Amino acid sequence: MTDPTDLRIAVLGVGVMGSDHVARITSKISGARVSVVNDFVAEKAEELAAATPGCRAVADPLDAIADADVDAVVLATPGTTHEKQLLACIEHRKPVMCEKPLTTDVSTSLEIVRREAELGQRLIQVGFMRRFDDEYMALKALLDEGGLGRPLVMHCVHRNPSVPSYFDSSLIVKDSLVHEVDVTRFLFDEEIASVQIVRPIRNPGAPEGVQDPQIAILRTVSGRHVDVELFVTTGVAYEVRTEIVGEKGSAIIGLDVGLIRKSAPGTWGGQITPGFRERFERAYDTEIQRWINAVRGGSSTGNYIDGPTAWDGYAAAAVCAAGVESLETGLPVDVQLAAHP
Amino acid sequence: MTDPTDLRIAVLGVGVMGSDHVARITSKISGARVSVVNDFVAEKAEELAAATPGCRAVADPLDAIADADVDAVVLATPGTTHEKQLLACIEHRKPVMCEKPLTTDVSTSLEIVRREAELGQRLIQVGFMRRFDDEYMALKALLDEGGLGRPLVMHCVHRNPSVPSYFDSSLIVKDSLVHEVDVTRFLFDEEIASVQIVRPIRNPGAPEGVQDPQIAILRTVSGRHVDVELFVTTGVAYEVRTEIVGEKGSAIIGLDVGLIRKSAPGTWGGQITPGFRERFERAYDTEIQRWINAVRGGSSTGNYIDGPTAWDGYAAAAVCAAGVESLETGLPVDVQLAAHP
Amino acid sequence: MTDPTDLRIAVLGVGVMGSDHVARITSKISGARVSVVNDFVAEKAEELAAATPGCRAVADPLDAIADADVDAVVLATPGTTHEKQLLACIEHRKPVMCEKPLTTDVSTSLEIVRREAELGQRLIQVGFMRRFDDEYMALKALLDEGGLGRPLVMHCVHRNPSVPSYFDSSLIVKDSLVHEVDVTRFLFDEEIASVQIVRPIRNPGAPEGVQDPQIAILRTVSGRHVDVELFVTTGVAYEVRTEIVGEKGSAIIGLDVGLIRKSAPGTWGGQITPGFRERFERAYDTEIQRWINAVRGGSSTGNYIDGPTAWDGYAAAAVCAAGVESLETGLPVDVQLAAHP
Amino acid sequence: MTDPTDLRIAVLGVGVMGSDHVARITSKISGARVSVVNDFVAEKAEELAAATPGCRAVADPLDAIADADVDAVVLATPGTTHEKQLLACIEHRKPVMCEKPLTTDVSTSLEIVRREAELGQRLIQVGFMRRFDDEYMALKALLDEGGLGRPLVMHCVHRNPSVPSYFDSSLIVKDSLVHEVDVTRFLFDEEIASVQIVRPIRNPGAPEGVQDPQIAILRTVSGRHVDVELFVTTGVAYEVRTEIVGEKGSAIIGLDVGLIRKSAPGTWGGQITPGFRERFERAYDTEIQRWINAVRGGSSTGNYIDGPTAWDGYAAAAVCAAGVESLETGLPVDVQLAAHP
Repeated sequence: MTDPTDLRIAVLGVGVMGSDHVARITSKISGARVSVVNDFVAEKAEELAAATPGCRAVADPLDAIADADVDAVVLATPGTTHEKQLLACIEHRKPVMCEKPLTTDVSTSLEIVRREAELGQRLIQVGFMRRFDDEYMALKALLDEGGLGRPLVMHCVHRNPSVPSYFDSSLIVKDSLVHEVDVTRFLFDEEIASVQIVRPIRNPGAPEGVQDPQIAILRTVSGRHVDVELFVTTGVAYEVRTEIVGEKGSAIIGLDVGLIRKSAPGTWGGQITPGFRERFERAYDTEIQRWINAVRGGSSTGNYIDGPTAWDGYAAAAVCAAGVESLETGLPVDVQLAAHP
Repeated sequence: MTDPTDLRIAVLGVGVMGSDHVARITSKISGARVSVVNDFVAEKAEELAAATPGCRAVADPLDAIADADVDAVVLATPGTTHEKQLLACIEHRKPVMCEKPLTTDVSTSLEIVRREAELGQRLIQVGFMRRFDDEYMALKALLDEGGLGRPLVMHCVHRNPSVPSYFDSSLIVKDSLVHEVDVTRFLFDEEIASVQIVRPIRNPGAPEGVQDPQIAILRTVSGRHVDVELFVTTGVAYEVRTEIVGEKGSAIIGLDVGLIRKSAPGTWGGQITPGFRERFERAYDTEIQRWINAVRGGSSTGNYIDGPTAWDGYAAAAVCAAGVESLETGLPVDVQLAAHP
Repeated sequence: MTDPTDLRIAVLGVGVMGSDHVARITSKISGARVSVVNDFVAEKAEELAAATPGCRAVADPLDAIADADVDAVVLATPGTTHEKQLLACIEHRKPVMCEKPLTTDVSTSLEIVRREAELGQRLIQVGFMRRFDDEYMALKALLDEGGLGRPLVMHCVHRNPSVPSYFDSSLIVKDSLVHEVDVTRFLFDEEIASVQIVRPIRNPGAPEGVQDPQIAILRTVSGRHVDVELFVTTGVAYEVRTEIVGEKGSAIIGLDVGLIRKSAPGTWGGQITPGFRERFERAYDTEIQRWINAVRGGSSTGNYIDGPTAWDGYAAAAVCAAGVESLETGLPVDVQLAAHP
Repeated sequence: MTDPTDLRIAVLGVGVMGSDHVARITSKISGARVSVVNDFVAEKAEELAAATPGCRAVADPLDAIADADVDAVVLATPGTTHEKQLLACIEHRKPVMCEKPLTTDVSTSLEIVRREAELGQRLIQVGFMRRFDDEYMALKALLDEGGLGRPLVMHCVHRNPSVPSYFDSSLIVKDSLVHEVDVTRFLFDEEIASVQIVRPIRNPGAPEGVQDPQIAILRTVSGRHVDVELFVTTGVAYEVRTEIVGEKGSAIIGLDVGLIRKSAPGTWGGQITPGFRERFERAYDTEIQRWINAVRGGSSTGNYIDGPTAWDGYAAAAVCAAGVESLETGLPVDVQLAAHP
């Protein structure tokens, strides 16, 4: 019997992102389960439903939203279908987590905003996931506590090794730049007043007709400058980097070294994790999740663990006992282990 | 236990580590819930039970283990109580995740190993969480794929800003070094043959009578050398660092830059995240978990989100539309936003 | 001038840069000495001449250039005087190392170029010192060997903690940006086709009326994009950073970690110094220069060294002898030192 | 005619190190020139003398030391010959820069110390060049200003890609460890009390019979602990690393990122160069040295420069003029260049 308080989620669109969300909700996230999946390729949804306990496929996305067995909705469908699906969520008062874009044009996006505002409830969340990234959160916290003084300039880099074949020049703006647009609004808490796209010499490796790289120059209402290198056919790897320059110093994330801050008097550096709980927080989460999963499967295998064994605990005890002995004498002490049973 | 029912966990000992585990199982981990808590300070357990849905306090740890409402046990009690509690888990065939140490001496540890072996089931997992840390896992993978050739030498640093007042010289061995003991056995897949503890000049800031720092020198059965700096009163921060030197190069973790590898011909470096799913995996987990939590609490607040709003989606659409226009002309394009409803 | 005689140099202008050059030529550089100094503050030149062996002050810069005791000229005078002085150097066929700017306007700069071209000799070198910096040279070498494929985009940062009080908005272009202009031309081997200066929100700490920071956007003849953050009142430190993005990867310098390169398949990293001669090249130079200086001054002090003593050599020998003994036994060996004579 | 105040140096032994010193004194160092070279392979010395202006070869090293044309001596001969040559330097009162080792055994080293002490002059400097390295000097300065409090522990790594075929186990101690011995004495200003060499499992790639890697454990008189990994057949590159752990924090050099310091409250980082003179000091030295060299060779080529041309100065002026224009309008301004003459 499932936990009756778990939220029942419909995931609409089970391509790469949608499938990831199904797996996440099923095996990594507390308090929810996937009750319904939907995809315009019906077989894909059915297959996934079969592999997910307590889940069924529903053929029509609007039916899925309306389903009595659905408390909330994750939209991972193509952007062109979002308007209709979001309106259905509003109609049925179903909270919805909508992958970007909200809709594919400005006027329908505004219409969604207005319809939700009329409700007086906040039902719609948009999937700008960078706001939940440790480094972006650290940068936001640094700004909010005034650590950089007034922010003046931001430099961003957004690089993909490659993109799907349907990507064209304008998708680089709508699908890639959109993240830096949200990052700018999130970090600076203000709107963007103007945009300029500069077209450098094309990457010889970019698909015919696609302007890549592009340089976007954003100006916020208060006059802050943001530049973004968008380069989606680098052939190298995924790189996202953001540097903010303020009146009291600068800070950069995305160099694979956490947040690096430069400030007077001429120093650069970062924070060291204060303690083992912070340093190994993820390890603890993983340890317990993998143990839980092993225990759940243990009755059929007789193996209820997925990690260090009792023997590992015994061997560690034996070594430490030798260490305590050496602490007195300073000399090497041999470790004596019993035969492994 | 293979049915979809959440596992019911008893957490014994609800100090810092135990409470962390209760919170983790309750709000971050899928597939389990805490049904019973226990602590030798009864009020602490009762308070925590009251704050945890579906959970009650049980006064005696052995009763908690035997409780019919308990499928598996997390031991976060003092090490001195582990032996008795582990034997109870074995008796009741309850899988148990036991924080280190297994027990506080070598002979009882071995006894536990033997009792579990007689069962023919693996019930006991020991809480050496570093095996689940991304960096240690990357180092292990690099070794196992032969990336460093035959490993020869390992250097470790283990620093704490401070330790509880009851810490003495031998606890530095049993409580701190024990992690590097397990790391050595995990990474090298072999036992440790001898231990030597060197006593450098004492830190003037260490408590009276405590030998801190200490240098531990481990030798594995095949002759690999491991040295460990143990320094638990640095006053600075928590630092754990491990470098392995092999016949084909070296690799280091714990420099706050992921795994850095040095190899012929004279290069150093690391891996860049291949794609956005890997780069933002944690952000996605956090985004969905916080959204689920908001939706669960939404009926009382009318707010079903904890993240970017529909307005954020609309504003992004408006900026991108201006960007697409600029992509044609190369000139700055003003962004026109409606009034915020 | 190919005989072994040291070149006799006139240094014109002995402010900060000029004095540095005098000290450099006198005590760090081989093959030249300063025979003449000049400054529009006559006392400053006379003082410096008195402190520099074999050097005298000459009151008029044109006389200094013409002086029979001068083989070559270093111009560290204000830019407004350069035209006249450079023409004098050309007239007298004196090689000249001219600190930037060549002259203060475009037409006189071109005139200088033409006059030198008529001579058919290259007499004039301009002081763009970044071309001689290890990191810029490494970046240039990487580009020239095709390591990044075709370069497409360059990002530069140029930050000063503060600037002299006479700095105004246009000096930021002429005195700061000018370095990135030369870096662009040097690295890309092509001319710049257009420039755009974007004015972000002003740093509240910048002097009244000065536009700081500025963002410069350069476009080369072949269409490469270069952006430069110019920020000369950061209050922090001097930072110069350059990243080039090419069709086969990117490389960045100025992060205080040498040249970092990112390339397929998703790796980042740098070069480790191949040997001790490269690693300690500067240390060897410094060691020998300081020793030479000590020996030259030794007759008056009886001390002919500035570095490790014979005792240091003896003590090292004693420790190593103990080490060789321990190499056999593996046990600690005490070091016995004689009394220090 | 050469500068009569330049010191006349005899370089004894012109293998790799000796030849480097000849080149250094001839073309990079101020105030000295090489007047005599000597080598036990006479042709090598003669060839080098022929290529070095004002220099001649002298067949006997003791004659070279005694030569009236020699003010000071650089010893780069094999260590076995040092004793006799140093005694000759003392006899003739010739200052000498002696590459390590001082001599090849402890008693003769002590004898040298005593003979110099009897003179009452400091004539002998030993070539421990690390004391002149920027990073070691920064670490020493940090210690001396108390930045780490009382130093307690030091960890060193000393790796070579390979060593000459005559290297044996004890040379690793005498030729490699000797540097860390001096570094320890230099940084801690105290003598070393004991040494222990630990022999890990051998590198399969090390020559037959050579114990490589080795771990050296030094203990200073006051009880400080130093450990050194010596590994001279890594096949990778040259790596030298030193970390000091003190009562108030730690600092590490040799990570290719300058000196990194960790200190309370949980921060890590380094210093940014304060200004352009510090950042580009080496570039200025190189620029001027290369210019001087070009001017000296110019009469035969008509080319008196080795760096940016007048055209480079003109082009920079033209771009900056366009930049100043754009500063007003914010719009792109085209750069107009004359034809290259």
